[in-house]
Amino acid sequence: MSNLVFVLNGPNLNLLGQREPHIYGHETLKDVEAQCQAVCETAGLSQRFLQSNREYEIIDWIHEARHDAFGIMINAGAFTHTSIAILDALTAFEGPVLEVHVSNIHKREAFRHFSYISQRADGMVAGFGVQGYALAMQRMGKLFAQS
Amino acid sequence: MSNLVFVLNGPNLNLLGQREPHIYGHETLKDVEAQCQAVCETAGLSQRFLQSNREYEIIDWIHEARHDAFGIMINAGAFTHTSIAILDALTAFEGPVLEVHVSNIHKREAFRHFSYISQRADGMVAGFGVQGYALAMQRMGKLFAQS
Amino acid sequence: MSNLVFVLNGPNLNLLGQREPHIYGHETLKDVEAQCQAVCETAGLSQRFLQSNREYEIIDWIHEARHDAFGIMINAGAFTHTSIAILDALTAFEGPVLEVHVSNIHKREAFRHFSYISQRADGMVAGFGVQGYALAMQRMGKLFAQS
Amino acid sequence: MSNLVFVLNGPNLNLLGQREPHIYGHETLKDVEAQCQAVCETAGLSQRFLQSNREYEIIDWIHEARHDAFGIMINAGAFTHTSIAILDALTAFEGPVLEVHVSNIHKREAFRHFSYISQRADGMVAGFGVQGYALAMQRMGKLFAQS
Amino acid sequence: MSNLVFVLNGPNLNLLGQREPHIYGHETLKDVEAQCQAVCETAGLSQRFLQSNREYEIIDWIHEARHDAFGIMINAGAFTHTSIAILDALTAFEGPVLEVHVSNIHKREAFRHFSYISQRADGMVAGFGVQGYALAMQRMGKLFAQS
Amino acid sequence: MSNLVFVLNGPNLNLLGQREPHIYGHETLKDVEAQCQAVCETAGLSQRFLQSNREYEIIDWIHEARHDAFGIMINAGAFTHTSIAILDALTAFEGPVLEVHVSNIHKREAFRHFSYISQRADGMVAGFGVQGYALAMQRMGKLFAQS
Amino acid sequence: MSNLVFVLNGPNLNLLGQREPHIYGHETLKDVEAQCQAVCETAGLSQRFLQSNREYEIIDWIHEARHDAFGIMINAGAFTHTSIAILDALTAFEGPVLEVHVSNIHKREAFRHFSYISQRADGMVAGFGVQGYALAMQRMGKLFAQS
Amino acid sequence: MSNLVFVLNGPNLNLLGQREPHIYGHETLKDVEAQCQAVCETAGLSQRFLQSNREYEIIDWIHEARHDAFGIMINAGAFTHTSIAILDALTAFEGPVLEVHVSNIHKREAFRHFSYISQRADGMVAGFGVQGYALAMQRMGKLFAQS
Amino acid sequence: MSNLVFVLNGPNLNLLGQREPHIYGHETLKDVEAQCQAVCETAGLSQRFLQSNREYEIIDWIHEARHDAFGIMINAGAFTHTSIAILDALTAFEGPVLEVHVSNIHKREAFRHFSYISQRADGMVAGFGVQGYALAMQRMGKLFAQS
Amino acid sequence: MSNLVFVLNGPNLNLLGQREPHIYGHETLKDVEAQCQAVCETAGLSQRFLQSNREYEIIDWIHEARHDAFGIMINAGAFTHTSIAILDALTAFEGPVLEVHVSNIHKREAFRHFSYISQRADGMVAGFGVQGYALAMQRMGKLFAQS
Amino acid sequence: MSNLVFVLNGPNLNLLGQREPHIYGHETLKDVEAQCQAVCETAGLSQRFLQSNREYEIIDWIHEARHDAFGIMINAGAFTHTSIAILDALTAFEGPVLEVHVSNIHKREAFRHFSYISQRADGMVAGFGVQGYALAMQRMGKLFAQS
Amino acid sequence: MSNLVFVLNGPNLNLLGQREPHIYGHETLKDVEAQCQAVCETAGLSQRFLQSNREYEIIDWIHEARHDAFGIMINAGAFTHTSIAILDALTAFEGPVLEVHVSNIHKREAFRHFSYISQRADGMVAGFGVQGYALAMQRMGKLFAQS
Repeated sequence: MSNLVFVLNGPNLNLLGQREPHIYGHETLKDVEAQCQAVCETAGLSQRFLQSNREYEIIDWIHEARHDAFGIMINAGAFTHTSIAILDALTAFEGPVLEVHVSNIHKREAFRHFSYISQRADGMVAGFGVQGYALAMQRMGKLFAQS
Repeated sequence: MSNLVFVLNGPNLNLLGQREPHIYGHETLKDVEAQCQAVCETAGLSQRFLQSNREYEIIDWIHEARHDAFGIMINAGAFTHTSIAILDALTAFEGPVLEVHVSNIHKREAFRHFSYISQRADGMVAGFGVQGYALAMQRMGKLFAQS
Repeated sequence: MSNLVFVLNGPNLNLLGQREPHIYGHETLKDVEAQCQAVCETAGLSQRFLQSNREYEIIDWIHEARHDAFGIMINAGAFTHTSIAILDALTAFEGPVLEVHVSNIHKREAFRHFSYISQRADGMVAGFGVQGYALAMQRMGKLFAQS
Repeated sequence: MSNLVFVLNGPNLNLLGQREPHIYGHETLKDVEAQCQAVCETAGLSQRFLQSNREYEIIDWIHEARHDAFGIMINAGAFTHTSIAILDALTAFEGPVLEVHVSNIHKREAFRHFSYISQRADGMVAGFGVQGYALAMQRMGKLFAQS
Repeated sequence: MSNLVFVLNGPNLNLLGQREPHIYGHETLKDVEAQCQAVCETAGLSQRFLQSNREYEIIDWIHEARHDAFGIMINAGAFTHTSIAILDALTAFEGPVLEVHVSNIHKREAFRHFSYISQRADGMVAGFGVQGYALAMQRMGKLFAQS
Repeated sequence: MSNLVFVLNGPNLNLLGQREPHIYGHETLKDVEAQCQAVCETAGLSQRFLQSNREYEIIDWIHEARHDAFGIMINAGAFTHTSIAILDALTAFEGPVLEVHVSNIHKREAFRHFSYISQRADGMVAGFGVQGYALAMQRMGKLFAQS
Repeated sequence: MSNLVFVLNGPNLNLLGQREPHIYGHETLKDVEAQCQAVCETAGLSQRFLQSNREYEIIDWIHEARHDAFGIMINAGAFTHTSIAILDALTAFEGPVLEVHVSNIHKREAFRHFSYISQRADGMVAGFGVQGYALAMQRMGKLFAQS
Repeated sequence: MSNLVFVLNGPNLNLLGQREPHIYGHETLKDVEAQCQAVCETAGLSQRFLQSNREYEIIDWIHEARHDAFGIMINAGAFTHTSIAILDALTAFEGPVLEVHVSNIHKREAFRHFSYISQRADGMVAGFGVQGYALAMQRMGKLFAQS
Repeated sequence: MSNLVFVLNGPNLNLLGQREPHIYGHETLKDVEAQCQAVCETAGLSQRFLQSNREYEIIDWIHEARHDAFGIMINAGAFTHTSIAILDALTAFEGPVLEVHVSNIHKREAFRHFSYISQRADGMVAGFGVQGYALAMQRMGKLFAQS
Repeated sequence: MSNLVFVLNGPNLNLLGQREPHIYGHETLKDVEAQCQAVCETAGLSQRFLQSNREYEIIDWIHEARHDAFGIMINAGAFTHTSIAILDALTAFEGPVLEVHVSNIHKREAFRHFSYISQRADGMVAGFGVQGYALAMQRMGKLFAQS
Repeated sequence: MSNLVFVLNGPNLNLLGQREPHIYGHETLKDVEAQCQAVCETAGLSQRFLQSNREYEIIDWIHEARHDAFGIMINAGAFTHTSIAILDALTAFEGPVLEVHVSNIHKREAFRHFSYISQRADGMVAGFGVQGYALAMQRMGKLFAQS
Repeated sequence: MSNLVFVLNGPNLNLLGQREPHIYGHETLKDVEAQCQAVCETAGLSQRFLQSNREYEIIDWIHEARHDAFGIMINAGAFTHTSIAILDALTAFEGPVLEVHVSNIHKREAFRHFSYISQRADGMVAGFGVQGYALAMQRMGKLFAQS
């Protein structure tokens, strides 16, 4: 079985660490990738850590993951609340799916409360800052160990 | 500063491991306490791990935490969706509050989608099984280290 | 198999026969218990007939019923419309659950139209006055005979 | 005073015992009529047991009942949720009206949760299988005895 | 051009004068027909005054009116709020359509506030008691005179 | 008893006959007053026929009507849908209240479907063109004759 | 296995070709029957092509179809949006059910957007004019060939 | 007649003066009790001043009040918005009921705008700070003087 | 600082004591003014006690209050639920604003539950009869003393 | 053709420059009039620049504009969200209508998001500060030049 | 006139035949293209059969179709429910538009019930499996023949 | 400080002047660019005038604007109503943001009434035709002059 985890990041997350640091903190996506990598090494996992502002690219990556990956960790950013297309792609993926949000989306504007991703995701972590990524990767590690 | 974390569990969680294992898994609350304890020891934290079917007891514990604790981790069970009183108590607490759900409440009945706890909680983990507790305790450890 | 039926009565039902008799009639809970007892004796059932204004006590009794009882008959009073915690406890019970209301809740205020209990209950009788209890016990008797 | 009870059955109930037996059971309307008859004999009641897929026929029967009957027991089937005309006819009837549903309509599709019949009915039994008819006839017997 | 007006009365209106006289008054449909007839004679109109509890009969009459009638006056009773089929039939009729209600439907239950008939009717009179029929016939007379 | 009827017309009705004639026709308020006067004379009534674009003036007139008038006929124009103050004034009036609309408000924009006036009015006529005024005055005549 | 298809047409469809031709076109139901017949002959199917303004007749036909028919094609007209009774009858039928609408109901009034029939139908065609019938019969032919 | 007034305080009000002083001020429940006591003495009333985080205790006190008290003053805290059980208990009480809130609940989160207590309470004061208690006691005094 | 309080009364309140006394009581606005005056004298306040059925007059008075007054007490009557213009005027006033209703608006029609005034008011008293004015003036006195 | 533009300002706009300057800025209505005048002179337009807190006065001015004016520019203030009467008056005007708001109403309270004026206005500018007036007058100039 | 039909397939449809075959069946988009081609040849049409996960590509193709094509057949997949941009592009196209869905979207999650495409499409076929494409192409053929 | 303004145009705006000219007019985007350029030259601004059907491209341009631009003028077309991702990008930009719509979106379909862009935009102009661009650029010029 593949030990690969796709870590997919949606629109505007390339600005992580620069944009609204009172909400998202100062660490960059680069930093997050390193933190996930550390967990992967402990857990016997490898990762493909990706970001895109393009909905189709995220869809294409999920399609690739159908062949290559054990699991998907996804912070779809704003697409969380608007993209049924990403939901459909995730539904076509059979491994575990974990949803990550840096901020607690349930405390923000009403239109951020509903997540299409959650209709498919096995679990969600939100509001744990960027540490949520590493913790979700630990979860992935446990699921991998049990599989 | 106190290094104590209150871990509060709401109604029916005493049945954890027995009730609907396809949703909640087979581990008991005792097991969960042990897993949290392990994280606490690493992180320099101590914990009070409690369960009650009584809303007032949870409120009273939160009031105690105002004096004694660094943070609160709470799985309020069904009270998540109905108890403004617990929300008010948490609002009177000044440290970090983390919300845990064993299952992904966003994939269940509509009346489980809204969480009063989330109006106050800094973060939430849901659908990570009982492992969510230990991961939330790691988060607590990081917040403690930063404080 | 146990032949025991828990008959659980929620808040304010201790006032039955005193409170708003134009809605609830003049018979007391004591009278109702006797009427149920008569049916039990015919049907080969025994009963634990209980009342509480305390949500947790009702939850605890349902937990006990998991070990001791064939079925649960419940008039949760106002908790019918507000307590997901009782619903969750009932969901953890595997025998038949019958819901009783003295008045026809569908003809009263809008907030009494929705019942969390009904999400789990196998059947409901409402607006049959206190006779609804005895009739529900007959139903319990039939289900017991078929089991 | 008349001792006659109209037992009115709405659309598709002629299929009872054949249609979706996991929901409605295997007993036919003929069987139900016999069970009600047995209760009638004990209670000093007589019955007219009728079924129609025609809304107007049910309305006409209720109009007849205004002159002939002590009470009406009605399982309006799908008309429960759509027929204000039947509700209006029932409102023009002055005796007791009891509503019966074989299944628990509150656990089915949302459009089955609202009952026009309930706006007039004195009581409702639902989800007690076909036994609900006989129990409702017992209730009718009691109301007759008290009248 | 035809001088014929169909006056169509829906379910339960055969009970007019008997049912709930505090809402509908004591005059019967026979009385109303006579009052309309008097207006017709003045206005140079003739009428077909009909009542049915059957939705299809009302539809069939409207279909006939397409060939025979100048206008339609309709008190669809409960079908006002539930029958799109009658609305569709009326839409296929090209002359004037006037809607009559004996009581003021806007002051009654919420489900009586919406009228499918009003989506097609040129005008509505409600809450003028049975006098509303004669007044609507006067309106029909004026429209006839102008045609 | 007074034989006086207040006929109150709300905002923009001074433009009747000029504004949107495809909806409101070509007759002016002056014409309407004359038509009402003719009915009054037959019915033994007298009228005060008034128009104002000022909500307070309509309120003041209703207050006057409490002392002077048998009944009130009101076409509140746009205030129909927005003025609880006029509703409250009408509620303080004890005689009959009839509501008139030239067009069929139920076929226009959704915000014209609800009428505060209807919460108090005994009856409403809408969509009968300006003839609705005269017909409502006939109704007033009948109520006066019965009083 | 039966090769019979019931083609059921609801209220006002007897007017097809006469009523609102800008929406429904000029072909009559007779024409549509012929077009379906042509497809049947190619596909090895036979048909019973029926129309009624009577809800009960449609229900009765569906009950007959339970014994006689391979599939049901239904254009329930206005009953599409109001008849749970027809939905229930269809649910008691085990073969394929196809829903046809001449116009695109999703572009018309809001109350035409929801279809009870769709809760059971395997497929729907709408807005293809009367050609939709023949195309649906082709679909029926394919399902028959696969069965 | 009893001159006793129950003053009931719900969950978290034991923290009054400590919790969120920008909303609730600095005075404690002890201070409030003294202020009420002063009014009682002037008004010829006596009081039982109570606080609980337990819904059932508040219910039990209301039951006691049925026998002992002239009136009830209640600040149900968060239970205001969630407890139908307390509403039902209050409904079983026959004397005056006054509702008090320290803050103006209508300016806070949407879930604080609806009050079950208001369905029964004769009056409400909100946003007058803790002074609202003393003013409500004055009102109680007036009602007592008039009784 | 000014010691002046504007007491503003909205539409129909000139009828106080005459209109619907079962809701509003028998005291007139004159009586209320005197009761407020008595409180003012104790509290070192003066008042301008005003009533109008004219929305603009109330707005103009609030504008005057910006220059002249310490606080505003307002019973906006029906304007409470409809006038954003009064809300905007109040928002431009910087002193304390207290809202008074004679009846408990939360127990009346749904359209009386929402108050635009409450979006700005510091506090509200409702359902205390006309005594609510005097109590609100006491509150004003306290706020004046603290200022 | 008339070159006159009515510039109508609704309630509280007489306070412009004084009220909530963080929202509305420091320029007064006088200043705005001068800015509009400058544009008028360039564009060959003249203006009547008016303000009122009285809804009827605004209605009356719009009625006058029907005879005198090329176009209407309107900042209806709070009436934007509540006055169907002003909408109806504008509908009776045939020239261009432009809506102006100093602040961005879409970012404020939910009840400011809907504009009755927009149902008629050809265009709207909001959140451009008082400069929005001059820009709208430029638009009026262009429409005038094209007419 | 062009005989070209654009057949546009939206996101995830490249997985057709692989993803969730219990919903979508086993045939691939390649198979569907062949089936459409067969119909085209009979009907004198040609096709451009395209798929993309990119919303903009679908928009661009529709823009091209404005110049090149007779009609558009579109299965927009998840974009059906979210893309107003595709709707706007289709609105700018003047030929026939037919909407295809492999599954019956009306029986799936609520968020799949609304289709932006349907606001423009002339017709829709859903739940006919992939055969729906060929049948829609037949419809296109008929429209082409009639043009 | 930069004097550069990004003018961003969303999907289908490349068709401006060709598509639905009764709504959007005959001027092309090229024309609009020239009109904006003229204003820029007067105001001391420069512009980057861009159009894309690609959501990600608009996001990327906004990211660039964070480094290069004084302000952003955006007509997001259909993305206005669906793209939280663009809103998030705009939120990460610190200069002024002005929203432009050629037509008055508040008079069109309900799904065009809500704008995500407005959650961030400082101001909006809609329904001023393409002239709205030039007027918004004037506003930009004033903001630039004040900065």
